[in-house]
Amino acid sequence: MITGKNYIGKQKSSKGERKFKTFNPLSNTENEVAFAEASTEEIDNALDLAWQAFEEFRNYSGSRKSEFLNAIADEIEALGETLIDTYCSESGLPVGRAIGERGRTMFQLRSFADLVKDGNWVEANIDTAQPDRAPLPKPDIRKMLIPLGPVVVFGASNFPLAYSTAGGDTAAALAAGCPVVVKSHPMHAGTGELVASAIIKAAEKTGMPNGVFSNLNSSGIEVGVKLVQHPKVKAVGFTGSIRGGRALYDLAAKREEPIPVFAEMGSINPVVFLPDALKERGDVLAKYYAGSVTMGAGQFCTNPGLLLGIKGDHLNHFITKLSEAIVEIEPGCMLHPNIIGTYEKNKKQVMANAGLELVSEYAEEVGANFAKQAVTTVEGATFLENTALHQEVFGPFTMVVQCEDKAQLEAIIKKLEGQLTGTLIAEGMELSKYASVIEALKNRVGRIIFNGVPTGVEVCPSMVHGGPYPASTDSRFTAVGIHSIQRWVRPFSYQDWPDQFLPEALKNDNPLGILRLVNNKNTKDRI
Amino acid sequence: MITGKNYIGKQKSSKGERKFKTFNPLSNTENEVAFAEASTEEIDNALDLAWQAFEEFRNYSGSRKSEFLNAIADEIEALGETLIDTYCSESGLPVGRAIGERGRTMFQLRSFADLVKDGNWVEANIDTAQPDRAPLPKPDIRKMLIPLGPVVVFGASNFPLAYSTAGGDTAAALAAGCPVVVKSHPMHAGTGELVASAIIKAAEKTGMPNGVFSNLNSSGIEVGVKLVQHPKVKAVGFTGSIRGGRALYDLAAKREEPIPVFAEMGSINPVVFLPDALKERGDVLAKYYAGSVTMGAGQFCTNPGLLLGIKGDHLNHFITKLSEAIVEIEPGCMLHPNIIGTYEKNKKQVMANAGLELVSEYAEEVGANFAKQAVTTVEGATFLENTALHQEVFGPFTMVVQCEDKAQLEAIIKKLEGQLTGTLIAEGMELSKYASVIEALKNRVGRIIFNGVPTGVEVCPSMVHGGPYPASTDSRFTAVGIHSIQRWVRPFSYQDWPDQFLPEALKNDNPLGILRLVNNKNTKDRI
Repeated sequence: MITGKNYIGKQKSSKGERKFKTFNPLSNTENEVAFAEASTEEIDNALDLAWQAFEEFRNYSGSRKSEFLNAIADEIEALGETLIDTYCSESGLPVGRAIGERGRTMFQLRSFADLVKDGNWVEANIDTAQPDRAPLPKPDIRKMLIPLGPVVVFGASNFPLAYSTAGGDTAAALAAGCPVVVKSHPMHAGTGELVASAIIKAAEKTGMPNGVFSNLNSSGIEVGVKLVQHPKVKAVGFTGSIRGGRALYDLAAKREEPIPVFAEMGSINPVVFLPDALKERGDVLAKYYAGSVTMGAGQFCTNPGLLLGIKGDHLNHFITKLSEAIVEIEPGCMLHPNIIGTYEKNKKQVMANAGLELVSEYAEEVGANFAKQAVTTVEGATFLENTALHQEVFGPFTMVVQCEDKAQLEAIIKKLEGQLTGTLIAEGMELSKYASVIEALKNRVGRIIFNGVPTGVEVCPSMVHGGPYPASTDSRFTAVGIHSIQRWVRPFSYQDWPDQFLPEALKNDNPLGILRLVNNKNTKDRI
Repeated sequence: MITGKNYIGKQKSSKGERKFKTFNPLSNTENEVAFAEASTEEIDNALDLAWQAFEEFRNYSGSRKSEFLNAIADEIEALGETLIDTYCSESGLPVGRAIGERGRTMFQLRSFADLVKDGNWVEANIDTAQPDRAPLPKPDIRKMLIPLGPVVVFGASNFPLAYSTAGGDTAAALAAGCPVVVKSHPMHAGTGELVASAIIKAAEKTGMPNGVFSNLNSSGIEVGVKLVQHPKVKAVGFTGSIRGGRALYDLAAKREEPIPVFAEMGSINPVVFLPDALKERGDVLAKYYAGSVTMGAGQFCTNPGLLLGIKGDHLNHFITKLSEAIVEIEPGCMLHPNIIGTYEKNKKQVMANAGLELVSEYAEEVGANFAKQAVTTVEGATFLENTALHQEVFGPFTMVVQCEDKAQLEAIIKKLEGQLTGTLIAEGMELSKYASVIEALKNRVGRIIFNGVPTGVEVCPSMVHGGPYPASTDSRFTAVGIHSIQRWVRPFSYQDWPDQFLPEALKNDNPLGILRLVNNKNTKDRI
């Protein structure tokens, strides 16, 4: 069922000469199918088709796009066990996680299906004419969101389904009316091909134009570079490392016509443990955080890599308990030998910094590709001075920073780079006492959490998954939730356009029944 | 009253050694006051103050920001004749235009005052908790827009008020809660200082923190470069040439922490004249367009520099009438010797292209700095092949392209760079007949106009002033209208945050009475 070929629109194709295989980290062996890297010709063909498709697809009604998105969810479900087995064999992740992530992926697709069917998302604005206004008549102007054009989506290593082929970026772009070309992640190219086949089936069943979706394989960087530089590409979505995301951002910025790149990148997700909370709940918190740090072998962008507290017995006790709890957890298998290799390398590198102390590390023998979790600690002053300690170690690793006092805690937070999340562990009244610390934290993150863990990114309209650079390349957008559609659209105005030729969303009689801002009032009324 | 000094917050300052003067193009003489270029120390001080101000200002209520914005409008009005005289002496523009632009500026400020007082603009979203949800409880998540940080605004040469010191970019940024540092345009530094003094007065009267606004003078590029590279600057607004805007965009993209630059740049604003319309109304259209091309000496970003028609008697007749009408109009004084110098140079340069024919040009003697308007024409095939003909000639200049047929017309539109506007001059039924031409045009522009002129940018929520590159650096935003505030804000999520510590916009009892998306329903209800 997995052929190793690319999808150039609905056509399977393998013109490239280079091949690669995926790897099963659990069995520590290569998987069987060889995947053909997309050739330059295939890239051009995919983009030509995408552009042709765009000329139709951009004007499709919300209902038609909704049918397509729901059909993708159905077809993914119909892949059944094959998808789950392939997912597991290419990621080392457990079946439960595969099923959960499939559910999340389908939920995202269906959420966007609902969004575009409902139609309110286009943010329709209408200012009616005032022909008699002095000194100049006022024209009739109407505005709505329209799609940017073909979008390239890079699959993420750590979410073979939810942030890859038919993940959030793809679902949002298709919902917006943008054709999508996926640069499949080489670690799970088989999963990618299966999902791509589901999208292609859905596109055919619901009468979408050929080229609305393509899936390209590649194990190196060349295909990605060519895609980002391609003049027919109008935006890029990426989830991954800072180095990778920044490289794509730089390429896009250097184009003759620069294009937006939304890259969701690294984060150490600082957690501030305030004294009263540690005093009251130190033991519970230690267990809770041992779980969060090691969840999914630490392979979440919201993994808590930085725990901040104020020096003293309660913090010491917490560190002891965290260290005890974390080594009781069974190590997890990482996604790929390259990922665990980088984890071990980064861990060693960060441990070489003066003042960073290893408190505990899983010590027993583990199988190949299983990550040994570790807790480290460092003085606040040392952390403040040495930004090498601020870098992410992707994996089940965390660092407890022992701050001298509130002022140092605040100084550290102000010095951090942008983060996806910040978490505050506090007793209620500490929120007032540490107001300036919280203000500083808010300014560095996209989402702030009270008495919880950063892992677990709820898919809902209120979610912000993004944040100041380098959490993302553009803090003005979220990568998760329905509003992530805003990355792929632009506002467009019609001036004095005849009603019969306006899109449905802007017609006088409001045939879609959507909420519109008409002469500065929100209303569903007809004009 | 005009001192030639910078405003570093509320402090007047002139530590730089380089000085420059503004120029009166009407009298063709330098104005008196010498302006001191901002020094590096002054730039740093302005940004330090801006950052300090941000720590307070970002949490100010909508009402407080609203008072501030209204006070700015009041103080600008209170400058009275002095402002109008200075404006005219630094721009060569007539008093009527100065008064009109002042009105527009005040209207923009008051529109943003209304927007933030009302409070709906923060796009509040609330998803309430479901503690019993299986398999995992759902947290309470709430989202709203918050300001990015200090914004640098570059004044525009062609709008000393409405797109400069207290223009749209500044008003939107202050409304968002971002302190603003203006890099004043050197051609109207006196106007800039007067407006800056009004902003500073308004800030003091309404109790804004020092540093919420600064105004820096500079005649070269160094100050602008330093500002865009400054780590405390979080976004940039610019209106001007493609070269200037792109240079700033490139600088911002190369920063360690890249920041968004919204640059509204050049445009030739294509106008498509369809055959039936030319047949019915050729004479009227010729007069109408002669006026639009020469309005304000052609110094509008929406000036119609490209007129497209299909070859034949009606187009010939239109060209004749346009040529006759345009030379009957009195030439206008351009903003500055540099501007008219560039106009004449660009005109000469474009005329050197093979196949471009001069049809008419104002021939009588004119005063220094007065621009001679010109109409040119070229064959469709020639225009299609030679993109040098697609470049903007900023001034009262237009080019009529004579297309062979509809297919060539469409091909030309598809080859154009991104534009602020596209205009269609047509009889009603031609909208169907030329549907593919219109589709192509829509894809290249931010605003499409039916049977009008592109000049005249109405300030209203439905306006899009922006468009695909190089009309702007990011087509996902508009530079005009209340939604231009979206350039300076980012979404921010609170997870499980205690109600009493949430901002007003997100509290359970909705004290602001704003419209919120609560569990996917738009409502003003309390939770």
